[in-house]
Amino acid sequence: MSEPKLQQHTLPTRRHPVFLAEAGRLLPTLHHAVATPTALVTAVQENGWQARHCGTPAQLMDRVLKTGDEVILDFGTHCVGRLSLCCEPVGSPPDAPAHLHFTFGEIIDEVAEPLTGYDGWLSTSWFQQQDLYLDVLPAQVDLPRRYCCRFVKIRVVATSRKYGLRLRDIRLHTETSAGSTHPAAPATADPLLQQIDAVSVLTLKNCMQEVFEDGPKRDRRLWLGDLRLQAQVNYATFGNNDLVRRCLYLFAGVTREDGLIAANLFMKPEVIADDTYLFDYSLFFIATLADYVAATGDDATLRDLWPTAWRQAELALARVDVQGVVTDGDDWWSFIDWHEQLNKQAASQGVLIYALNKALALAERVDAARVPAIAAGVARLRAAALEHLWDAEQGFFASGAGRQVSWASQVWLVLAEVGDVAFRRALMARLRTEPPAVRMNTPYMMHHYVEALLQVGERDAAVAAIKDYWGAMIGQGADTFWELFDPENPGYSPYGSRLINSYCHAWSCTPAWLIRTFSL
Amino acid sequence: MSEPKLQQHTLPTRRHPVFLAEAGRLLPTLHHAVATPTALVTAVQENGWQARHCGTPAQLMDRVLKTGDEVILDFGTHCVGRLSLCCEPVGSPPDAPAHLHFTFGEIIDEVAEPLTGYDGWLSTSWFQQQDLYLDVLPAQVDLPRRYCCRFVKIRVVATSRKYGLRLRDIRLHTETSAGSTHPAAPATADPLLQQIDAVSVLTLKNCMQEVFEDGPKRDRRLWLGDLRLQAQVNYATFGNNDLVRRCLYLFAGVTREDGLIAANLFMKPEVIADDTYLFDYSLFFIATLADYVAATGDDATLRDLWPTAWRQAELALARVDVQGVVTDGDDWWSFIDWHEQLNKQAASQGVLIYALNKALALAERVDAARVPAIAAGVARLRAAALEHLWDAEQGFFASGAGRQVSWASQVWLVLAEVGDVAFRRALMARLRTEPPAVRMNTPYMMHHYVEALLQVGERDAAVAAIKDYWGAMIGQGADTFWELFDPENPGYSPYGSRLINSYCHAWSCTPAWLIRTFSL
Repeated sequence: MSEPKLQQHTLPTRRHPVFLAEAGRLLPTLHHAVATPTALVTAVQENGWQARHCGTPAQLMDRVLKTGDEVILDFGTHCVGRLSLCCEPVGSPPDAPAHLHFTFGEIIDEVAEPLTGYDGWLSTSWFQQQDLYLDVLPAQVDLPRRYCCRFVKIRVVATSRKYGLRLRDIRLHTETSAGSTHPAAPATADPLLQQIDAVSVLTLKNCMQEVFEDGPKRDRRLWLGDLRLQAQVNYATFGNNDLVRRCLYLFAGVTREDGLIAANLFMKPEVIADDTYLFDYSLFFIATLADYVAATGDDATLRDLWPTAWRQAELALARVDVQGVVTDGDDWWSFIDWHEQLNKQAASQGVLIYALNKALALAERVDAARVPAIAAGVARLRAAALEHLWDAEQGFFASGAGRQVSWASQVWLVLAEVGDVAFRRALMARLRTEPPAVRMNTPYMMHHYVEALLQVGERDAAVAAIKDYWGAMIGQGADTFWELFDPENPGYSPYGSRLINSYCHAWSCTPAWLIRTFSL
Repeated sequence: MSEPKLQQHTLPTRRHPVFLAEAGRLLPTLHHAVATPTALVTAVQENGWQARHCGTPAQLMDRVLKTGDEVILDFGTHCVGRLSLCCEPVGSPPDAPAHLHFTFGEIIDEVAEPLTGYDGWLSTSWFQQQDLYLDVLPAQVDLPRRYCCRFVKIRVVATSRKYGLRLRDIRLHTETSAGSTHPAAPATADPLLQQIDAVSVLTLKNCMQEVFEDGPKRDRRLWLGDLRLQAQVNYATFGNNDLVRRCLYLFAGVTREDGLIAANLFMKPEVIADDTYLFDYSLFFIATLADYVAATGDDATLRDLWPTAWRQAELALARVDVQGVVTDGDDWWSFIDWHEQLNKQAASQGVLIYALNKALALAERVDAARVPAIAAGVARLRAAALEHLWDAEQGFFASGAGRQVSWASQVWLVLAEVGDVAFRRALMARLRTEPPAVRMNTPYMMHHYVEALLQVGERDAAVAAIKDYWGAMIGQGADTFWELFDPENPGYSPYGSRLINSYCHAWSCTPAWLIRTFSL
């Protein structure tokens, strides 16, 4: 799969110190706990890689590891934290350093398969590995980085012929800003939905760090598209609303010179806006602020951030042509989904309408004068979608010069409430009876599909979709929900290898919100 | 080459807290300086690996290193210290960690050749390497270990496609306990001897750390055989006599239960005696103490340590048979030289006599009652050597049941002053005209050969040997003298690969002592 071709955005960024200072004040305290291995496992090939129990952690204490030996530890579930252990020499006094190699895996595949064959376009630096040289033994070691794992493979690359190593006190010091109180279970009596909810909650928890990270393994960054969904799940679970508020101030704190909000931010060594700007993601600032205000009633924050939010609408509307349709592009201008063939025009039209509709609710609270113009804009964009994007013959919205029919286009124009409810319900039904070839690739897109089903009242289909899709991930052993999942193509990755996919990913944690908000 | 078969020494060790406390009080202060790269080089194959100049350090600042790029820095000479550098991102904000790999080489071969093919019996953990993952950029990095190098190869294993790295402020913070004052040049007017002396002094300096290390790359340990020679060079150069005193107390501080001194000590986490005991090395405690007393007149230390020293003689004498000859063994009971075929019996007889002769000088100061017995013992062992080891037909001393004739046997029995001066001078001459097949492999053995030449008054031959042997190392680019050097077999290693040899090794630094003490 080829790398997305990025737009060049040469405009410099502008910092907004008041917003950044407010974000700094909202830096959360991380909560720590200690996880210990629950088993020793081996990786076996059986319908893909499986972890097979081969011993207890206590048995590791009895083993003396020599050059070439390796063990795989299973922490029982997905963890985010820092590893510590004690290495004791056994035999003669250590007459050479000990050299150990650690590999961390969210899934067993990452520690079972050699990483050397990777040839994708994301950096191999994402592979979670660590070499360790110990000059003095015994050694109490704290590995230097935060890792994301259920499995840790430890290979003794070399001791000497005169001594071996015993590994003790292996601990993962976990980190999260989600808080130590686990949210109450949802009302549903369905065991699979309960299970899906629990995995969703753990996914969110492990992504909640100093910001809402997209994935604690990769990219460990604040992306707006992920934030919007995480924030919604958070209102329904941990209720750490200040973390959402912090992230809103962060995005408003560094914008492009013209006010455009970046698709994602880097936090260290200081807050930096990535030079990636996406049409849909910028608009999600409006939606995220609207959801925050709806959840909290915090009009003070709304007054601070409304000008920034509205600026996103203005910049997006500048891309609308005289017919009222968002101009298409052949670069990576809008995200929508990971899909090489997907044309983004129609779905982006939907996102714009969806965001303007959210802006309407906000303007009613703080900028009444602008309400009529926004309402008129929403109506114009909806009409233009029906007039120019609707393909009556096919019964679907079509996107781009090639008039492409995709799931994403339908879903987003339904979420934008284009057409009346009967029209939208028929469209959502047609998706299932006449499925377009351009499918959905991510839990992120699947979430929007389910939300669209619920919007048109198709609760049973929504529950079925959740169970089929997120339930299938659990069936394949997911402790947290994955960034990418195509049940028909288990090796799917937009990055060149499934080993570099994230297996605890923010945008996949939404079932907890869907189940709780819609009382599924 | 096969690994030496070690004796099993099951006796526990005994700690002597008063001695260890004294050694602790003598812990030296390390002196620090900053070394910076003098050039960028590439490694080329021309009669073995050569470093070819390819740029200035300033030019490195202009380069942006991307995934797969590598540079080799040349620090101009051999250094021991800790590396620091600054890594700056160039391009878009770093959207993935930076992964760097460092390889350190005392000689260019170590950074030019892949280390993966190594199959020797020493641990690969001695290869000086470091992986570095930087999550936050720019980063000021202090690598965690002490390294030993002239050359540092830095490979950018991975950045991302959106940014590269600029490396700045690359510094090696050197460490030595030798003191910052460089010893005055020796009196010799010979430029090659001056050069050999300077390289010897740097070799000693870089081995002088918290103890006299055998090699700062490998094994980084206090070995008695090396200490004896380092101490002598030190008296003639840096004059850090307290460091010798410290090492004597360390060896006396942890002995085998029966009082035998170990061949080497580990310093951390506490002083530990290695479970390697060698006949000759234990006896060198006597010689080292005698040399120290001769250099300092420190009778207080002598009184403290004389019982320990004498115990080594007692234990060695227990190995002498009724004929007055040291009993041979088929295990690694005595070191003498790295040589797979070398029989150690005759040379060990020489070492025992040599050490008893040193003990005689010490006993005269503090244990007069024992003098007659020691003198008698020396005479008896010398007579036994002439009677049982001398092979009149061949004109050489023979060793072991196989009556092996080696250089080492002759050299050590000359140093033991077996036979009168004329006999010994003739023997040393015969070595050159009828060279035995079992040759010398190390600068350590070569040192004893030169010392034997000087003992019989062969100054010209001694100077020629120093120039031929140590001069040839300089001719091959040595900045410090090597652990192993066979001019006829440049790849010689007793460990399975010359890459794991030490290229700054204590026992090779003796020309400075020979040149200065004998006014060569």
